[in-house]
Amino acid sequence: MTAKMNRQWRLAARPSGLIQESDFEWREEPIPTPGDNEILVRNIYLSLDPTNRGWLRETKSYVPPVAIGEVMRGGTIGVVEQSHHPDFQAGDIVLGFLGWQDYAITNGAALTKLPVDPALPLTAYLGLFGIIGPTAYFGLLDIGQPKAGETLVVSAAAGAVGSLVGQIGKIKGCRVVGIAGSDEKCRWITEELGFDAAINYKTEPVLERLKTHCPNGIDVYFENVGGKILDAVLSLINIKGRIALCGLIAQYNATEPVPGPYNFRTILTQRVRIEGFIVLDYRERFMKAYEALGRWLVEGKIQYRVDVIDGLENAPRGINKLFDGTNKGKLIVKVSEEPSV
Amino acid sequence: MTAKMNRQWRLAARPSGLIQESDFEWREEPIPTPGDNEILVRNIYLSLDPTNRGWLRETKSYVPPVAIGEVMRGGTIGVVEQSHHPDFQAGDIVLGFLGWQDYAITNGAALTKLPVDPALPLTAYLGLFGIIGPTAYFGLLDIGQPKAGETLVVSAAAGAVGSLVGQIGKIKGCRVVGIAGSDEKCRWITEELGFDAAINYKTEPVLERLKTHCPNGIDVYFENVGGKILDAVLSLINIKGRIALCGLIAQYNATEPVPGPYNFRTILTQRVRIEGFIVLDYRERFMKAYEALGRWLVEGKIQYRVDVIDGLENAPRGINKLFDGTNKGKLIVKVSEEPSV
Repeated sequence: MTAKMNRQWRLAARPSGLIQESDFEWREEPIPTPGDNEILVRNIYLSLDPTNRGWLRETKSYVPPVAIGEVMRGGTIGVVEQSHHPDFQAGDIVLGFLGWQDYAITNGAALTKLPVDPALPLTAYLGLFGIIGPTAYFGLLDIGQPKAGETLVVSAAAGAVGSLVGQIGKIKGCRVVGIAGSDEKCRWITEELGFDAAINYKTEPVLERLKTHCPNGIDVYFENVGGKILDAVLSLINIKGRIALCGLIAQYNATEPVPGPYNFRTILTQRVRIEGFIVLDYRERFMKAYEALGRWLVEGKIQYRVDVIDGLENAPRGINKLFDGTNKGKLIVKVSEEPSV
Repeated sequence: MTAKMNRQWRLAARPSGLIQESDFEWREEPIPTPGDNEILVRNIYLSLDPTNRGWLRETKSYVPPVAIGEVMRGGTIGVVEQSHHPDFQAGDIVLGFLGWQDYAITNGAALTKLPVDPALPLTAYLGLFGIIGPTAYFGLLDIGQPKAGETLVVSAAAGAVGSLVGQIGKIKGCRVVGIAGSDEKCRWITEELGFDAAINYKTEPVLERLKTHCPNGIDVYFENVGGKILDAVLSLINIKGRIALCGLIAQYNATEPVPGPYNFRTILTQRVRIEGFIVLDYRERFMKAYEALGRWLVEGKIQYRVDVIDGLENAPRGINKLFDGTNKGKLIVKVSEEPSV
């Protein structure tokens, strides 16, 4: 399954609503050759994340938009195939943002070399470490500041970030209620991950169920989705509640302007703090999150799961699983085979 | 002008939209007599504040709603006329919440005795001290955390709180831009109070003018109004911007649900912190604010102005000046004469 050409998805048009395959152009180019101080990396895994959708908008965001004609941006794990750079050698496994393609040439400046640990699958670096773990860790602990005995609500609770947030909340002694999009997900987070309760937002009345499952109100909300769920949470939030704003998946594909929550005034009357964050701002502290997550993983206190789509050609269709809620855990595309150890 | 009866405005109906005089009932009752450990207070000044409107709603807020049939709640300065309480004597001037009436009986527990300072008019305790000063002081400094050289934007900038916020911002070395509702107000805050720029939201395009007056973006926003002005500010807010949410005057009289800002997503992409606050949470630190405000007043670094409506009978009509923007400074009703010193 090692491509003879460099297959790529380049952005062809800015999507309106859900991403269409026709928003991208499939290209096959010759495999490029690295120059001095450059390396050739073959991508093995490609990370698909809700935030990718924001990169396709023309409007201002935390990173520049992907340009029309550019290879689609995406987090990747790859293997160095050729190195003309003193810091890298063939066979090195590297984490970075090399995009939706088989091969990339880079000077390596933005890459992280990964240790090869036989006990840890490579996908763990996208599903638990990488940016997912620090997103959950810093978003919950730095911004949410949960205290033992408080009630934590998490949306997109069976997603890569949300499932970690809930588990960290349990480690910190919170009552944890997750909101997810299927009965299977709800069972997973309660029976396997130890959430105290789960709500299937597709089949259950969210506000009513939150009232039942949060008898002492809500102290911390880890927000991934926005929309009606945010309004339901605001109507139950306690005085001095904290909302860590990590994502707004519910509106990423909107084609019309989306209003903020109707219960916005509650931020005032309940003295709520809402704070948005981008995990890349915490880059210098990532190691702290990795150490804690690694320890909890070894101790059996946290779990994660990955949902692997086979083949780069399926990336544009696959990414919508994040928006229709059909993904089960961290969504990853397998681009090529892992090197045999 | 000392009433022979206890004239009162009692809530008759929950207003829909702007307050109507018919939402209150005018009553004249005998002046009550204090019992043991009680005092009789004659109200001299009544404070009218935007937050009063929220107390008339049936929905959850930071204080219980005023009940139908109850004397309308309001901040007051009064004079003790009879005391059967060891801590008070006739002639004491007291600050509290004795409501829209001439006289009240109280045990004094929720009152603050005011010093009599010939250099300071009594209205200063409603216009600068009382709760106005601490609202501006803690909202700006604790929540907004302005740094020298940053840009601060204030809405309702010629109001009692907003005008102080801008002046404190100047003391702290910020570039300060105020948004107000008349040319006279804009002149006052720039020419008299030292704001760097002012925008008349009734006659100027707010977003365009903000772009002009905030060439380095907006770091801190002190929010009193909500609505379109909040959206304009969000579209120019800098990374790690702070929004102190003090009030949402623009929606207090709404009869339909009001959505939050359309630029809500900017809170995420720019890593903004929005925090609501209620000044009463800072009660134990009020003295700190009073000391600073008193010093700045003496040093000529801050000014305030009061807009006095004559006569308790005019309170229901007068309060709408806060919502149509026709008040000039802290809105106060003169209920009876100050005692001669």
